[in-house]
Amino acid sequence: MKKIAVLGSTGSIGQQTLDVVRALPDKFKIIGLAAGNNIDLLKKQISEFAPKLVYYRDRKIKLNADSCKLATMEEMAIHPEVDILIIATSGKASLNAIMAAIKAGKKIALSNKEPLVMAGEIIMAEVKKDHPSQAEILPVDSEHSAIWQCLNGENLKPARIILTASGGPFLRHSTAQLAEVTAEQALKHPSWKMGQKVTIDSATLMNKGLEVIEAHWLFDMPYDKIDILIHPQSIVHSMIEMQDGSVKAQLSCPDMRFPIQYALSYPGRWQNPTLPKLDWGRIDSLKFELPDYDDFPCLKLAIEAGKRGGTYPAVLCAADEMAVDLFLKKKIGFSDIAKIIEQILGRHQNTTNPKLADILAADEWGRAEASQWKS
Amino acid sequence: MKKIAVLGSTGSIGQQTLDVVRALPDKFKIIGLAAGNNIDLLKKQISEFAPKLVYYRDRKIKLNADSCKLATMEEMAIHPEVDILIIATSGKASLNAIMAAIKAGKKIALSNKEPLVMAGEIIMAEVKKDHPSQAEILPVDSEHSAIWQCLNGENLKPARIILTASGGPFLRHSTAQLAEVTAEQALKHPSWKMGQKVTIDSATLMNKGLEVIEAHWLFDMPYDKIDILIHPQSIVHSMIEMQDGSVKAQLSCPDMRFPIQYALSYPGRWQNPTLPKLDWGRIDSLKFELPDYDDFPCLKLAIEAGKRGGTYPAVLCAADEMAVDLFLKKKIGFSDIAKIIEQILGRHQNTTNPKLADILAADEWGRAEASQWKS
Repeated sequence: MKKIAVLGSTGSIGQQTLDVVRALPDKFKIIGLAAGNNIDLLKKQISEFAPKLVYYRDRKIKLNADSCKLATMEEMAIHPEVDILIIATSGKASLNAIMAAIKAGKKIALSNKEPLVMAGEIIMAEVKKDHPSQAEILPVDSEHSAIWQCLNGENLKPARIILTASGGPFLRHSTAQLAEVTAEQALKHPSWKMGQKVTIDSATLMNKGLEVIEAHWLFDMPYDKIDILIHPQSIVHSMIEMQDGSVKAQLSCPDMRFPIQYALSYPGRWQNPTLPKLDWGRIDSLKFELPDYDDFPCLKLAIEAGKRGGTYPAVLCAADEMAVDLFLKKKIGFSDIAKIIEQILGRHQNTTNPKLADILAADEWGRAEASQWKS
Repeated sequence: MKKIAVLGSTGSIGQQTLDVVRALPDKFKIIGLAAGNNIDLLKKQISEFAPKLVYYRDRKIKLNADSCKLATMEEMAIHPEVDILIIATSGKASLNAIMAAIKAGKKIALSNKEPLVMAGEIIMAEVKKDHPSQAEILPVDSEHSAIWQCLNGENLKPARIILTASGGPFLRHSTAQLAEVTAEQALKHPSWKMGQKVTIDSATLMNKGLEVIEAHWLFDMPYDKIDILIHPQSIVHSMIEMQDGSVKAQLSCPDMRFPIQYALSYPGRWQNPTLPKLDWGRIDSLKFELPDYDDFPCLKLAIEAGKRGGTYPAVLCAADEMAVDLFLKKKIGFSDIAKIIEQILGRHQNTTNPKLADILAADEWGRAEASQWKS
């Protein structure tokens, strides 16, 4: 039985994590649930899963859960009963909890991209340090889970990583068409069911750019050995090309419960009758195309920020989060997202080999810049 | 440095094995070369690779290779200097050498399907026995190599195996069209460069049926968990569906040097600049369709013979080898291949739990029956 704490239990990944727990109740014991939003859902989750520890961002709200103990996310992260910490929060909310969990030698199922994008060097260096027991980052993003599954059993670094990308809802849209895109259109992802921020990031391909940076840190791969391949059906979740030129791919229906469950079952696998199977009678072809980077400026900006390193990726995340928020509030157009990010990155004074404080300062700076943005 | 002996060095797989050796000369030392045909090529190979041991089927022919010692295939198979025995022969020629190599605890890179099809139960039982050092069968067929590569690192049996099949040159041909097929047409395989017998077996899909039986023995999978999926491009070489429903696939250009080299490099992988890389700029889609078993009677006959077990698969192989030979000699039509095999299997008196002698007797019987065939 795996004892888990879910940070971000009311978000999309948090809810799908609890779907997996619901389907396989014998496999899990929920030790902690933490949420930043949606108090009503958190209350329901508390009464269904009876966690030992709970956290809600707004401390003034009463949870009416007498059997639970209030705890911070950091306290959950290092709690002796927790085997696996699921990071399903957004932005930088879990950064401290992740650092604490690594020092406590926990397994961390990481769905949230920003921590590794912002502080990949610091996080991975901490993972490699000797701790009483060894921490592990278990990728939950479908692409990184695919790469991890394909690397399983290979004793050499791959020659290259091929991250597949659906291309989002605006593949092959012209610049003029993209300028007219509404939030409602951008929120309709053709293949994945995800949270709002990730869905917009998927439409701009910023999400794929963040994944490139994440893959760089998770798999210790240089940026020039991480390729992107557009695959609109989101069935092939990513591939690795090995030293001999042979390629391995992982496939499944586009359903986040696959990578969530794999991170929890690893190194085993569990039968889960609620997960959909690929039906080869209905897949007549798997389609691929090389990405046109000019169509997706956010992708280019993200990879560039990753290559520059230092505090650039933190500013990238901050500016993107602010810009997406402005777009969802209909204060800016879809094409303005990239423009805001590009301008702010252009003004940034980089700090190389940053400490966590430098990264948080860069994040603050990026947000302040974005809040003053005028088109 | 891997010390190898190649049985069948002048055939298609034998020659491609030596291409791999030629590309990576620091990795190999050729201890033995054995051939049944093409004495001129064998002489060239002897002068290029200077093996210690040589074998040619026709003992009366002088090899003019004073530095080499004449040896039988069984002697090569158990020679103390041989690390890996490559079985690139056809039919049952290597059956005794394989049994000897297993008892001597050798690694056996197996490209030749018939030994496992005919005597899979006996061979795999011998592999599982305790020998001074442990024998291993390393699959060289592209499909089985793909499955083996995908299974690498997985600690559970897969839920199912999906063998891909090109469908051969006559995919979607009508019964009337198939009856008119000539040997020249059947020898033009759309994606693979292979020997004549295998190419005809690919056209009838008998080859895929033999692979199903081979996969049954190699991976200890029941027949109802081995699926076939038509994939005319021969880029996805096979897939496994794991217990959680997630699927892993192995891909490469259709080139037998990939599975040959993997069997030799396993568990490592070697860079080989002479192997072609997949170019994703030129692959816009990977196509799949479920097979129509009625179009390919040989496929149905093979799977049926595999399920019945005993001496049926030996009779299947014998009848098929004879029928393909008759077809290549233009004595029968393409559609007659399946008819001959079906009739002979229908007349066969099965021996369950056969010994090797029973299997060889069934093979003889099948050949005798086929030689008397009248349409």
